[in-house]
Amino acid sequence: MKAVVYRGARDLAIEDHAPQAPGPGQVRIEVAYTGICGTDLHIFHGDMDARVGASAVLGHEMSGRIAAIGEGVTGWSVGQAVTVMPTRACGRCPACRRGDSHICHSMDFLGIDSPGAMQSSWTVPADLVLALPDDLPLDHAALVEPVAVAVHDVGRGRIVPGEQVVVVGGGPVGVLIAAVARDRGAQVLLVEPDGFRRSVAARIGIEAVDPGPIDVVALVNERTGGAGADVAFEVSGSAGGVGTAVDVLTTRGRLVLVAIHPQPRPVNLHRFFWRELELVGARLYQRADVAEAIRLVAAGVVPARELISRVLSVEDVTDAFVALEGGGGVLKVLLDWREEGR
Amino acid sequence: MKAVVYRGARDLAIEDHAPQAPGPGQVRIEVAYTGICGTDLHIFHGDMDARVGASAVLGHEMSGRIAAIGEGVTGWSVGQAVTVMPTRACGRCPACRRGDSHICHSMDFLGIDSPGAMQSSWTVPADLVLALPDDLPLDHAALVEPVAVAVHDVGRGRIVPGEQVVVVGGGPVGVLIAAVARDRGAQVLLVEPDGFRRSVAARIGIEAVDPGPIDVVALVNERTGGAGADVAFEVSGSAGGVGTAVDVLTTRGRLVLVAIHPQPRPVNLHRFFWRELELVGARLYQRADVAEAIRLVAAGVVPARELISRVLSVEDVTDAFVALEGGGGVLKVLLDWREEGR
Ligand SMILES: [Zn+2]
Ligand SMILES: [Zn+2]
Repeated sequence: MKAVVYRGARDLAIEDHAPQAPGPGQVRIEVAYTGICGTDLHIFHGDMDARVGASAVLGHEMSGRIAAIGEGVTGWSVGQAVTVMPTRACGRCPACRRGDSHICHSMDFLGIDSPGAMQSSWTVPADLVLALPDDLPLDHAALVEPVAVAVHDVGRGRIVPGEQVVVVGGGPVGVLIAAVARDRGAQVLLVEPDGFRRSVAARIGIEAVDPGPIDVVALVNERTGGAGADVAFEVSGSAGGVGTAVDVLTTRGRLVLVAIHPQPRPVNLHRFFWRELELVGARLYQRADVAEAIRLVAAGVVPARELISRVLSVEDVTDAFVALEGGGGVLKVLLDWREEGR
Repeated sequence: MKAVVYRGARDLAIEDHAPQAPGPGQVRIEVAYTGICGTDLHIFHGDMDARVGASAVLGHEMSGRIAAIGEGVTGWSVGQAVTVMPTRACGRCPACRRGDSHICHSMDFLGIDSPGAMQSSWTVPADLVLALPDDLPLDHAALVEPVAVAVHDVGRGRIVPGEQVVVVGGGPVGVLIAAVARDRGAQVLLVEPDGFRRSVAARIGIEAVDPGPIDVVALVNERTGGAGADVAFEVSGSAGGVGTAVDVLTTRGRLVLVAIHPQPRPVNLHRFFWRELELVGARLYQRADVAEAIRLVAAGVVPARELISRVLSVEDVTDAFVALEGGGGVLKVLLDWREEGR
């Protein structure tokens, strides 16, 4: 079977590996589709070499079917459609002791810290597997993991129906947050400079504006009787995005911080004091978020078909990474493993 | 009767005013004690001239007794000990419409926007008056307003008994937050470079450390099995204080932002993301906070006697402001109005 292996910055190899039989408590999955996310791109760029060793198998967004079942595993049948929650907590660190094991300090993240989904046959602990509905197309199901991120982020925002929500940044996660927030009854405005991304948002009925010509804060104030937005999601990773997300909020508004900001950012703390704003970090997801993500993709709340820009064969994996790093013109890119595993 | 009037930067006059008879819905109060707070100091320095006109009567921390009762006012008797909640909301702005009228966008703050408590006879709307217990000394009661700030701040931190709390900044508000947090069952550590302030904290049983020689983050981690603090209060107003308050927090810890930061501060947003931290602004108080503050001062939870550094006569008001701006050697300074009003 084939696997996408990271050999160093910008160097991915397709290697032929022997399938690994599932041990006790494990299942072997024939992978159908894998997605490529921003973290995979960081690895591709060599930015995570301290954490990701050479010969790592990448990938943590996937769908597939159970191919073999290890000793002691019950409740699964061969051929069943599944996805995998790619995080394993240590159970002993301060986060796990608090009950926040989803952001365990010693996380084993499959596809980063241990072998990931970009292989035609993936053997994983059975307790990380979630069943997919029979009628959910497997390409759509490859979006479940990023949708789980969005479900978690929206949950951290504690949205009440009717609230005004601003999503700053319209990459895959930003668009998914907008779609999930709308499903929660929010009025959603997406802020994104890239025209292609705005067009994807528009296609699924999300209003998207270009922060270049448009004064987003003035626009939102105008629509809310001078109040501002109840919740803002910072998904851009830019200093300007943080400024917009702070300035757009109403009294006691919540800013959900989703993006990675490697450097400290200047933050208008006076506005946090004066308007009693909240800033809430949001990272990864809990198992319930993944289950909810499956429901939302299956129900079409997240219109997966419109968000998948390209499906490439495994041989074209480097092309897929290069297309994504360009940013424009693609939102979600999948690899199709189906011919490989059978 | 006498009044402390702001004539311009560093220029306070004691003027003789005629007492104002209470109109419908008002009461006249003979002021007993007034406190001086950081906002009063800002006004004294001329930093708030855009908001505070010349001839303004300062002061919003006070205790006194009802002297006269206006038409239509019920429930009060002459001689009754009272304090005043010095904020009036507009009822129409976005904050008021949300139910957050305590941080009304068009706040009338008595002692800033309209005549304050530094006069021997103060006429105010009766609905801002709260009764004091008969046995509460009136000098202690002058601390109710800053204690209400602390009650509100601690409430925003959602402290659970047993949690580790770090208060960064040991001025009057920081010490009061520490005392109220301890009453909520928290383990409290106060961080304050000034030796006098640390000695005041120590006298009321609050552990205080000097962040110069001591690595506060390492100390807290050591005491919490590597976890960190559940709640941090940023009361220092310094960039370094923000850094400490962020770094000291455990997973999903809450940072309550109490201090005023006129400039944007660099904030480690990556840590907010990675550990799912929260930042919560806290400003002023609601009426329930003032009522709770009265209870805490009366019960001795806030040991007012130890926190009042000096009580000066009204004639020495400029000396009182100058003593406070020096910072060292005094915590809370009161003016005694009792001989003036009778
Ligand atoms: Zn852990
Ligand atoms: Zn208002």
